[in-house]
Amino acid sequence: MTISSSSTTTSGVATAQGFRAAGISAGIKPTRKLDLALVVSDAPAAAAAMFTRNKVQAAPVLVSQEHLAKSGGIVRAIVVNSGCANACTGEIGMSDARTMAKETASLLGCPAEQVLVASTGVIGVNLPMDKIKSGIPQAFSALSSARGGQAAEAIMTTDPFPKEAAATITIGGRTVTIGGMAKGSGMIGPDLVPSATMLAFVTTDAELAPPMLRRALAEVVDDTFNAITVDGDTSTNDAVVLMANGASGAAIGDAEYPQFVKALYSVCLDLALGIVRGGEGATKLVAVTVSGGASSADARTAAKAIANSLLVKTAIHGGDPNWGRLLAVAGRAGVAFDPNRAKVTIGPTVLFADGRPYDDRAPEAAAYLKNTDVAVGVDLGAGTAVSTVWTCDLSAEYVSINADYRT
Amino acid sequence: MTISSSSTTTSGVATAQGFRAAGISAGIKPTRKLDLALVVSDAPAAAAAMFTRNKVQAAPVLVSQEHLAKSGGIVRAIVVNSGCANACTGEIGMSDARTMAKETASLLGCPAEQVLVASTGVIGVNLPMDKIKSGIPQAFSALSSARGGQAAEAIMTTDPFPKEAAATITIGGRTVTIGGMAKGSGMIGPDLVPSATMLAFVTTDAELAPPMLRRALAEVVDDTFNAITVDGDTSTNDAVVLMANGASGAAIGDAEYPQFVKALYSVCLDLALGIVRGGEGATKLVAVTVSGGASSADARTAAKAIANSLLVKTAIHGGDPNWGRLLAVAGRAGVAFDPNRAKVTIGPTVLFADGRPYDDRAPEAAAYLKNTDVAVGVDLGAGTAVSTVWTCDLSAEYVSINADYRT
Repeated sequence: MTISSSSTTTSGVATAQGFRAAGISAGIKPTRKLDLALVVSDAPAAAAAMFTRNKVQAAPVLVSQEHLAKSGGIVRAIVVNSGCANACTGEIGMSDARTMAKETASLLGCPAEQVLVASTGVIGVNLPMDKIKSGIPQAFSALSSARGGQAAEAIMTTDPFPKEAAATITIGGRTVTIGGMAKGSGMIGPDLVPSATMLAFVTTDAELAPPMLRRALAEVVDDTFNAITVDGDTSTNDAVVLMANGASGAAIGDAEYPQFVKALYSVCLDLALGIVRGGEGATKLVAVTVSGGASSADARTAAKAIANSLLVKTAIHGGDPNWGRLLAVAGRAGVAFDPNRAKVTIGPTVLFADGRPYDDRAPEAAAYLKNTDVAVGVDLGAGTAVSTVWTCDLSAEYVSINADYRT
Repeated sequence: MTISSSSTTTSGVATAQGFRAAGISAGIKPTRKLDLALVVSDAPAAAAAMFTRNKVQAAPVLVSQEHLAKSGGIVRAIVVNSGCANACTGEIGMSDARTMAKETASLLGCPAEQVLVASTGVIGVNLPMDKIKSGIPQAFSALSSARGGQAAEAIMTTDPFPKEAAATITIGGRTVTIGGMAKGSGMIGPDLVPSATMLAFVTTDAELAPPMLRRALAEVVDDTFNAITVDGDTSTNDAVVLMANGASGAAIGDAEYPQFVKALYSVCLDLALGIVRGGEGATKLVAVTVSGGASSADARTAAKAIANSLLVKTAIHGGDPNWGRLLAVAGRAGVAFDPNRAKVTIGPTVLFADGRPYDDRAPEAAAYLKNTDVAVGVDLGAGTAVSTVWTCDLSAEYVSINADYRT
């Protein structure tokens, strides 16, 4: 599957018909930056969602799962705050997350279970509920199909820029829009399905039956949000939600499914790569492709190990074509691997093959590593499976961002 | 088992009777720092060794394994160079490693297989054999029981200081000495048995049968070199070698074994903690203790996951008592874990217990984190198993060291 970037616009979560969004400052962040987002579908929408696999699940994750089960996957709105994760906050945290949904539902005139909740920020601190309670009506009043960008800003934590993407396809003569927003930065790890303090909300005006919607999301997440990493850590709060309200009048059946999935993939990949580009302290986007795997799982495991290696990430940050580190990580990744048939490439340059180094080509690879978007590859020499994982470099700025996140 | 630090001296690998060592500058490092070490036992010694589990094994690792098999575990000397790892160097690399052993053996008048070889430094570059060949006789001439310290310096790469330790015990009225040296810094990962660009050489003048020597080393490594991490990466070159030449006249049998193992543990723990303290860019030594594990394996897995988390390591670097990160890592570690019975401590302060945060105690924990040696703990609430792993904090200096290691 390839990115159909020609169909990608700069719009986001409120671009599809029948969706509105808002992002306001409720005062949760001491900086007074936007910190409360609301995404609303004018009509009840089918929703598919995937949450963190972390055994510590934040209150909003637990409440959203409850609500989806209770509503049969019918959702009207998602309310999201940044600045506080509402994780590890005990019974008070659960009650606060329920209150966020209830307050939103009462404004919309829908059952509370049709509202999903998400939070991101510091773990272990209770939400300032007075600010949340006065913020929700404020966001509700601001709802507009033109305010997806503000919503994308309001869900940011250490993100250097908002992440939005959209694509349109034509189904039976009707224009179907898929749009979304995401936030990431830290605690972005590859054990996603989903993982990381990663939030992604995607909306479409296509009509899909809930089972097909869930299938589409699961299929796409594996090669997008599941294939990125910033620091290999997995958050307590991750959520990817896909809502389909059918407002375009175009129904997706088996015949249209491939076209829909392809467009959904392009939106999700855009958002996922945006998270990596905006990774904490990141200066480079790195595509790590492992080929020659005995199985897809092996290829993915090795690609993730390389993508999470501090030694690899710092070498790429420094523009150092230290290909031996790539090989060493592949060797410790616990997958089938034949050093005598293995190959290491940095960009187009082969630096190790046939069991021997081609280190004289290092200057060529060093020149290539001056690019902002770089690709590195390891062939495991053990089969034919291939997997790509995207990561960013590791800079001194990552350390300063994370050394004093709370303080 | 506790550290019997009272018996620990500042001496090293040549402190035990019948051992001599030297460290010289062969010119492998462009800085002209010491880069070639030789450790010799005057009499043939029994040796036990553990090497990297990385599937990419450097030439010296392959040659040393060959030699141990061929010699039946009898070793006269270890020759070590820094500045070049001789890893991923093809047939030339294998031949170079064999030559290092041969040249050393011819000076000692012993079979080549009684010489072990180790290398550390950049991967994928061939050894400058002219420098090695002129360096070996130079090191041989310099051999002395007083030059363990120079050997410890000569095996350093990015290590900020040499690591040496020694202990003495009395067995049947005779003084037995155990001494050693180690190097570490980067590529220190916990899948050791052993792992990391970690080299550790320990000598003793006790007499042990080779099976007992191997048993002692395996037993001790698991709780020392195997229980440390700097960056979670595993090198192609790791080696831990223990040599026993019997020069003290004290034989270790079943009765003396516990006393010997205890002393060996104290030396190996000293060296292992030295590696962590000297970890690339490290400013703090962090003991991560996971209790309440359903099994020892679970406790170790969770402790390693926490010890390798960038978010945990950067928070500790910044003195930020961000206990939620500890809990979040435990939750994603893939082990049995009950958030409602879990507990998080920073030093003596409990910050999460009974399913709720005690975040008001954060200032107390922040004050504690100003210490250089800190301890953090997570109770998984799932059993009674306990494991401690040592790590260091992650600083901006780690990034600068590794971003331009080659260049």
